[in-house]
Amino acid sequence: MRRLLAAGACALALSGPLAADEVSSFTLDNGLEVVVIEDPRADIAVNMVWYKVGAADEPPGVSGIAHFLEHLMFKGTETREAGEFSEIVEREGGRGNAFTSWDYTGYFQRIASDRLELMMELEADRMENLAFTDDDWLPERDVILEERGQVVESRPGRLFGEQLYATLFQNHPYGIPIIGWREEMRELIDTDAMDFYERHYGPNNAILVVAGNVDPDEVRAMAERHYGAVPENPAITERRRPQEPLVVSDRRVKMSDSRVGQPYLMRYYVAPSRASGDQSGAAALQVLAELLGGSAETSVLGRALQFDERLALQTAAFYRGANVDDATFGLAVVPVDGVELAEAEAAMEEVIADFLADGIDAEQLERIKTRLRANEIYDMDSAQNRARQYGVGLSVGLDVADVRDWPDALQAVTADDVMAAARDLFARHHVTGWLMQAEDDRPDAADQVEYGVEDQADPDDFR
Amino acid sequence: MRRLLAAGACALALSGPLAADEVSSFTLDNGLEVVVIEDPRADIAVNMVWYKVGAADEPPGVSGIAHFLEHLMFKGTETREAGEFSEIVEREGGRGNAFTSWDYTGYFQRIASDRLELMMELEADRMENLAFTDDDWLPERDVILEERGQVVESRPGRLFGEQLYATLFQNHPYGIPIIGWREEMRELIDTDAMDFYERHYGPNNAILVVAGNVDPDEVRAMAERHYGAVPENPAITERRRPQEPLVVSDRRVKMSDSRVGQPYLMRYYVAPSRASGDQSGAAALQVLAELLGGSAETSVLGRALQFDERLALQTAAFYRGANVDDATFGLAVVPVDGVELAEAEAAMEEVIADFLADGIDAEQLERIKTRLRANEIYDMDSAQNRARQYGVGLSVGLDVADVRDWPDALQAVTADDVMAAARDLFARHHVTGWLMQAEDDRPDAADQVEYGVEDQADPDDFR
Repeated sequence: MRRLLAAGACALALSGPLAADEVSSFTLDNGLEVVVIEDPRADIAVNMVWYKVGAADEPPGVSGIAHFLEHLMFKGTETREAGEFSEIVEREGGRGNAFTSWDYTGYFQRIASDRLELMMELEADRMENLAFTDDDWLPERDVILEERGQVVESRPGRLFGEQLYATLFQNHPYGIPIIGWREEMRELIDTDAMDFYERHYGPNNAILVVAGNVDPDEVRAMAERHYGAVPENPAITERRRPQEPLVVSDRRVKMSDSRVGQPYLMRYYVAPSRASGDQSGAAALQVLAELLGGSAETSVLGRALQFDERLALQTAAFYRGANVDDATFGLAVVPVDGVELAEAEAAMEEVIADFLADGIDAEQLERIKTRLRANEIYDMDSAQNRARQYGVGLSVGLDVADVRDWPDALQAVTADDVMAAARDLFARHHVTGWLMQAEDDRPDAADQVEYGVEDQADPDDFR
Repeated sequence: MRRLLAAGACALALSGPLAADEVSSFTLDNGLEVVVIEDPRADIAVNMVWYKVGAADEPPGVSGIAHFLEHLMFKGTETREAGEFSEIVEREGGRGNAFTSWDYTGYFQRIASDRLELMMELEADRMENLAFTDDDWLPERDVILEERGQVVESRPGRLFGEQLYATLFQNHPYGIPIIGWREEMRELIDTDAMDFYERHYGPNNAILVVAGNVDPDEVRAMAERHYGAVPENPAITERRRPQEPLVVSDRRVKMSDSRVGQPYLMRYYVAPSRASGDQSGAAALQVLAELLGGSAETSVLGRALQFDERLALQTAAFYRGANVDDATFGLAVVPVDGVELAEAEAAMEEVIADFLADGIDAEQLERIKTRLRANEIYDMDSAQNRARQYGVGLSVGLDVADVRDWPDALQAVTADDVMAAARDLFARHHVTGWLMQAEDDRPDAADQVEYGVEDQADPDDFR
């Protein structure tokens, strides 16, 4: 068993919760990776199982199946009834949920430490023995359709995001929404979900993260008892996904919707992601995002567009780097009333050009790093967040050391690193989107999108 | 055996080659559909086998495999050496080739009628017994990479077309180039091709079209002897492809390339395709394309932009309707020197708006129909073209009657049909592309694309 001092604790000798943490990891014989994060501050435990499979692993034509399966995981097993899982968690005073992304699907419960073993028993059961009937999956399909209606289709910004990603990725399934295209979700059936389960779920494609007031040796013993009894799934193979081709064009997306209150523009680049053992490029992009768009008062875009020129209500820059495949880097500007998107876009481009020409203010870089450090400390001040960071990291191909070292990687970024990352990034082809208020007679998204579903399911089923 | 009088021969009582044709069709016990087109004018025969599988049926991540397999089909069988197929065709005075599209893959030989049976023997052999070695497939992969270099990457217009399609289709594999993305083609291996062959090739997924100076009864006897001996392939299943979601945005593609001589713009719409038993909507779109962009002197775009306003060197409108799934409709304008693409685009939009407001000149519609009729006659004046039309049609889910009736469907289009099709089409979201000469320092397609391959293969292998 390797024991690793938690993120940043030694590197920066900060006081506070981080120093008390210990992160250890081991692998069970059936391939299940286990990460234990000790945090004795409160007598709770988090039991998280992460499957290294997500929406980007779906077969073509069945978009949404990873998320649909996530819902169906609450529908019972060979020995447990539909809904029993959640009832037990609730009865025992715990809270649970699940989430699906492009690269992973996660399930967790937060509960009193002495109930941890029960959670493991339940979670290990559905790792192997999922079972559901027509009465379970048919109404659940309406639930996910309803979820798409609520979370995506009733929000023009989310629809716009889908259009941007579908345009940004020419070949990679990151261009397909995690929740799925409605047209395909409607056709999903039980065997699609069960095939996906049988092909991707199993201890040899999963990570267990346990965090809280727990003893690593006890966690190991419990994990071996429950998860260790689940046989390896021989159907699981290496991920092999379509990769992005060389992109030779800039692209643009214009979407008009009568529900848009405030028009805005976004620009996306495909960028390098965090790579195991070499996170320096990604760290530079993370610092760049913070520098360009981190805070209205001090960021490059904020100062120029919101304060000096008063063209923008809001600006942002973001880097989504923890991906199995390519990462994305984004810029956004919300112009003030009376400023056209074209004008805001030209101003944004000028700010970026000036930034590339002028370089970085050393003092500002230090401020950014201090803020990033503060963010890390804030994020780390919850066993659940720490568990989530390790879960995400290990799900996308990073290891415990990479996750542990990420804050240090951010602190090690130099001005030259940031400028090199910026020059590489801004020379890349990109996608620019304008989200606008519908003005003309053309059908807009609000007209075209079908909302919700016929059969409203029991809201308690929704997870 | 149904005998169908050939296209248009009865409907319009035209004299000429069409009236002499007879088209008959039948299906062998193993599922092979056979179409025989009698054309006694020259003593040749065309033997064409169409597989109802193409690039849009490829598994994700192995783009180009349909086309790679098409090449490997010339690499021998269990009893024939690599290259033997082509040698025999050549020795017997025939000419052969093959082609791959999104929806189908076709193989054909044109040869003296008395050699038809030999061609059938060869083609039936490779329908069942394909075999190739590492010495065959490895160099052939270089051949297809070289083909991509020559046909796509050395032509900015083709690269531009790829970018447009990748942007137009958000979910459907029509957005992936038929020849494949270079990054994926490079990784294709023998088992990818063999898996594709085993899953999709067989008499129950194929159409045989024989055209020329042949007797249908003799063709049937020969087809039964050779193709009839190939067993049904039980691995073949119904096509199930990702479909396009509701699109809620307009998109734009800008590509700059130092090799561009003449900048131009294109606009693409996703449109309805020809549907079996109901081709009227598609026929209206075909007439619309001819009306808008058919000839420089008389088309709506040509007259307005080339002659009246003198803004354009060239204009075009095109409809690609014979697809399994969605069709595409395109517009193109090549501005004269000194006219910006933005200006040309605005002018094009104005012409379309005027067209939608003014409607159609009845006389012009009649002229268009006469020209379409003439085109059909011209196209039909070759056994090979007729065979191709039936092959395409049957490959994409149309039947013999649909192919036969298409010219009549075009003639039946009314002015109201065209305007209704135009109103529907131009209300749809679209993709607009600008292909420009590279002016600035940003890397352009010419810089980024890698040309050709290391090992130049024997040019004789190229098919």
